[in-house]
Amino acid sequence: MILAADIGGTKSLFALWETTGSSWRIIYLRQYPSRSFTSLKDVIENFLADYASTHGCAPDIEVASFGMAATITNESCFLVNLGWTVEIQSLKERFPKIRKILVCNDLEATGHGLELLPSRDLHMLTPARQSIATVPPTQRESRRAIIAPGTGLGEAFLLGNKVISSEGSHCEFGPRSEIEVKLWRFFHEIYDHVSYERILSGPGLFQLERFVRQQYHGEASDSQLQPEDITRLALSGECAICQQALDHFVGILGAEAGNLALKFLAMDGVYLAGGIPPKILPKLQEGFFLRSFCAKGRYSQLMTKIPVSVVLNPHTALYGATSLAAQAVHPGIKPVLITAY
Amino acid sequence: MILAADIGGTKSLFALWETTGSSWRIIYLRQYPSRSFTSLKDVIENFLADYASTHGCAPDIEVASFGMAATITNESCFLVNLGWTVEIQSLKERFPKIRKILVCNDLEATGHGLELLPSRDLHMLTPARQSIATVPPTQRESRRAIIAPGTGLGEAFLLGNKVISSEGSHCEFGPRSEIEVKLWRFFHEIYDHVSYERILSGPGLFQLERFVRQQYHGEASDSQLQPEDITRLALSGECAICQQALDHFVGILGAEAGNLALKFLAMDGVYLAGGIPPKILPKLQEGFFLRSFCAKGRYSQLMTKIPVSVVLNPHTALYGATSLAAQAVHPGIKPVLITAY
Repeated sequence: MILAADIGGTKSLFALWETTGSSWRIIYLRQYPSRSFTSLKDVIENFLADYASTHGCAPDIEVASFGMAATITNESCFLVNLGWTVEIQSLKERFPKIRKILVCNDLEATGHGLELLPSRDLHMLTPARQSIATVPPTQRESRRAIIAPGTGLGEAFLLGNKVISSEGSHCEFGPRSEIEVKLWRFFHEIYDHVSYERILSGPGLFQLERFVRQQYHGEASDSQLQPEDITRLALSGECAICQQALDHFVGILGAEAGNLALKFLAMDGVYLAGGIPPKILPKLQEGFFLRSFCAKGRYSQLMTKIPVSVVLNPHTALYGATSLAAQAVHPGIKPVLITAY
Repeated sequence: MILAADIGGTKSLFALWETTGSSWRIIYLRQYPSRSFTSLKDVIENFLADYASTHGCAPDIEVASFGMAATITNESCFLVNLGWTVEIQSLKERFPKIRKILVCNDLEATGHGLELLPSRDLHMLTPARQSIATVPPTQRESRRAIIAPGTGLGEAFLLGNKVISSEGSHCEFGPRSEIEVKLWRFFHEIYDHVSYERILSGPGLFQLERFVRQQYHGEASDSQLQPEDITRLALSGECAICQQALDHFVGILGAEAGNLALKFLAMDGVYLAGGIPPKILPKLQEGFFLRSFCAKGRYSQLMTKIPVSVVLNPHTALYGATSLAAQAVHPGIKPVLITAY
């Protein structure tokens, strides 16, 4: 059996897979709120106990593969939005029955997962632009980028089939107008260092609503509207403040997606992954997002050639973690994931 | 014979090399001011004519390799700071006697050139940090980044020995303080889109001096001091305005070098190349640069582990172009460049 998990800042998704040749089938799936636990060990223990209580025995795990919203350096991982540190060696000691343990960054997992998605799991925002699927690059490796706003902001690059993790979301936010300068100042007063992650994340959307409330409407910035409420009220048209907050979010997301494409010259495509983009798809389709993406001064023309897609499948990172486990068990065989459960 | 050239926004450097086994020796070297020409063809013709006039015959060129301050897409290249477009096919038609023509981005050339430099050509700004040379990464490819301010701002990444070109300098500049917000506004009024290249380049230093003159000293921002004068007057301590301008330049260069390291998680090293860093080495050594490099909020601790070096050899991109030519002639043999000329 293979254990794969996607450990995010909000949710931790665990799956047990059974393999038959290259076919992989989910036999047990559970989701936990990450913040209810104090360490990765805790949540793994909980999952194993849940399995044991329904199956009457512990699962026999050949490989466990954890995609984590973490910076992976040598033998330890730090999950900045949960405050957890994971030491691989200590994880192995705590779970000696798991024969192999793999860890990777969650966006790295998302990158590997992308290769396994059917095309219906991707929504092309730029159908007129030729995607890598229709025009395979010749004599060079394809270059793509992933940007994933959720609890935090994940970023990664794809060079051919190789996934390159990034901590690019911690770069300084670059305003593009006087109102974005005011927005920078609002965040600067809260956090000092204003990175893209501070704005392009659930907590960022929460602050954006407070900023709009204060800046455009002269109200106290003490609103407690949660990110889910803000997107819902914005998309339904019920709340002008939420609409303005989401407009700022989408404009800055477009700008940073463009920055990422420029940094890596990702001419073969940019993918919007993470929890937030599928929830705001109607807003991303309005054209404002792509205008921000392309507005790069002398490079604006080049930007209009880059295909941009939204990753709709929320299990993409889980699939990627599974794919890495599959490689460890059967090198060279690409798994076919049977995901109905 | 091999022709290698480094075509920059200010200077174009041409070298003819003769090979004996893996030894490569420069037999003819010329430098031209790029802006005196209207196309790459013009400057190549000039070089060939100069050679012919001293040698009485045209050189017999097996491979020509051009590193250019350009975005290379498929078969054409655009040199944004010279306004030249280079079509490879038309170049081949114009110079049919050159049997093979290669082109690459100048920072890509710099990346390849780095591998050929002796250690004395690198100045370590962080001697206490372990460089890739002393701690080779195991079971993973090394990850490094290059940032090169000159006429423009070049950026590139190194994944193992693979060089990945970038147009990251066209990303939005992110201010870190109220004075940098004013600086953003000053550049925004001139260029609309304020990218890092607008600030971190010769023309950027020119504008920074005008900004400081206006902002700190209430003088009209109509100074015509050239970048070379600004660095000279700043380093000699003769001009307070120039010192302040250079301080802004160095602070923002540190911040963007840090951004680049975060985007690519370049834990194995960041290299400062291009024309400007060797000229301002005393300023880069003052500590202010590294403080800016490291000031990344929750990622500041991680940043203190990354080695940072200044590339002192101005021929690095030329060597890289030569190395690519060498690979085309003798695949797998690493050339030993005998550069005394």
